[in-house]
Amino acid sequence: MTRQELIKNIEFKKSVLCVGLDPDLSKMPESFSSDSKGVVEFCKGIIDATAEHAVAFKPNLAFFESLGQQGWEALAEVADYLKKFPNHFSIADAKRGDIGNTSKMYAEGILNKMRFDSITVAPYMGKDSLEPFAIQGKWAIALGLTSNSGAHDFQMKRMQDDRYLYEHVMDSYREWTSPEQWMIVVGATRSESMKKIREQLPDHFFLVPGLGHQGGDIKNVLKSGSFRSGQGVGVLINASRSICYAGINEKYAQAASKEALRLHEEIKYYWPR
Amino acid sequence: MTRQELIKNIEFKKSVLCVGLDPDLSKMPESFSSDSKGVVEFCKGIIDATAEHAVAFKPNLAFFESLGQQGWEALAEVADYLKKFPNHFSIADAKRGDIGNTSKMYAEGILNKMRFDSITVAPYMGKDSLEPFAIQGKWAIALGLTSNSGAHDFQMKRMQDDRYLYEHVMDSYREWTSPEQWMIVVGATRSESMKKIREQLPDHFFLVPGLGHQGGDIKNVLKSGSFRSGQGVGVLINASRSICYAGINEKYAQAASKEALRLHEEIKYYWPR
Repeated sequence: MTRQELIKNIEFKKSVLCVGLDPDLSKMPESFSSDSKGVVEFCKGIIDATAEHAVAFKPNLAFFESLGQQGWEALAEVADYLKKFPNHFSIADAKRGDIGNTSKMYAEGILNKMRFDSITVAPYMGKDSLEPFAIQGKWAIALGLTSNSGAHDFQMKRMQDDRYLYEHVMDSYREWTSPEQWMIVVGATRSESMKKIREQLPDHFFLVPGLGHQGGDIKNVLKSGSFRSGQGVGVLINASRSICYAGINEKYAQAASKEALRLHEEIKYYWPR
Repeated sequence: MTRQELIKNIEFKKSVLCVGLDPDLSKMPESFSSDSKGVVEFCKGIIDATAEHAVAFKPNLAFFESLGQQGWEALAEVADYLKKFPNHFSIADAKRGDIGNTSKMYAEGILNKMRFDSITVAPYMGKDSLEPFAIQGKWAIALGLTSNSGAHDFQMKRMQDDRYLYEHVMDSYREWTSPEQWMIVVGATRSESMKKIREQLPDHFFLVPGLGHQGGDIKNVLKSGSFRSGQGVGVLINASRSICYAGINEKYAQAASKEALRLHEEIKYYWPR
């Protein structure tokens, strides 16, 4: 999906909702089998129930890998199923990153073989660990300022020039990456910082996790994260647990749909002018 | 494997060689099929050929994932096969790391389900992203100072106190992690820095990549990375491509064995007293 197509889908639907797929055997309705088959059915149910309100889906690879090799079979089935939704941007939430020849292999597997539109990547190993993910027709989504408490440990440590590490990381992203192929992860719990990051990176989409369980807020994210006036919304706001586990029994899909609708309504309400 | 068992295996064999398994279809002998079956047979061949000289094996997950879901089937078979070598420490080179509930799932999949002794992890998201990997009876191996050129981009940026970011990361590891369950990645190309890191972290094993193709040197690594005098060697030195692709035809295993022997001899020659 190109940037123009993504923006068109967002504007048409007036939604920036990304539905995170975190299939957790301990939380899924008991009617599903506790295996990869159950995981696939559960994910399909969430996808069907929320597609109307979402513009993106984000399977979290860890939850699939927790099943061992069967998890990757399930992931492949979910990735295939997502191909039935060509107007939804697919994100493999994988946080990969390694030396160049190795990152290239992750890109091959997750973007080409599994056919995801995009993959999340981690920057600790620097430029040569990130570059291989920008392959033709695909996107990479690099960690910037994350929503968890651990963001304080390194990302928000001060550098020699008194600016935070994450600000230096953003400078590098501005220099290294094109907004046509790269997005940046900025946590919903960091809306004050998000404003400044938007100044640094005026044109990159932000993938914004941390809503719901982590305490982020749609109004502030839309205000802080949008592209500069008149150029569109500029964020994808992810909700995972609050949607996947909105209901606890066989009505989980109905509950997920209702929660996605609620978020969509809130997004529309605060849609930036 | 406990720290004491690992040290015993190292001392008994007088080896710190870790053989990295990077099965690359484009480099494997033509006699292997270009699929997961071929990958498994190739890896088994390398393992059999080098086990005598190695104390650890390190499958690089990217090379498996490049095959899509079949890659994880192959990975499971290789992980099973490694169970036949209980005196060899197994490392899933995965560079994972995410918010706590997600890291926990990676740990479950790779350490429990796939039964690796250890997993490599990336620190950008901080303490809560790392802690879940330290599960009972297993190890986590955290990125410290890597061997690639990208280490200069962030790891070797100066902080407010004029020290490098990676030095702060090492301080955190000292505070957060036990040498009974944690190792640190320090590139072979950084032997000058390795000396200082050894001062900071006197008791942690270092996993040292970057030999061969990346230009590291065994003599310097053993000198810089060993535990303080009389307490043992303190490093695992990894070689991947230089062993896996020592030969280019059906004699690949023989060539791998020869290269592993050569590295083992060099390790013994420079064994610290």
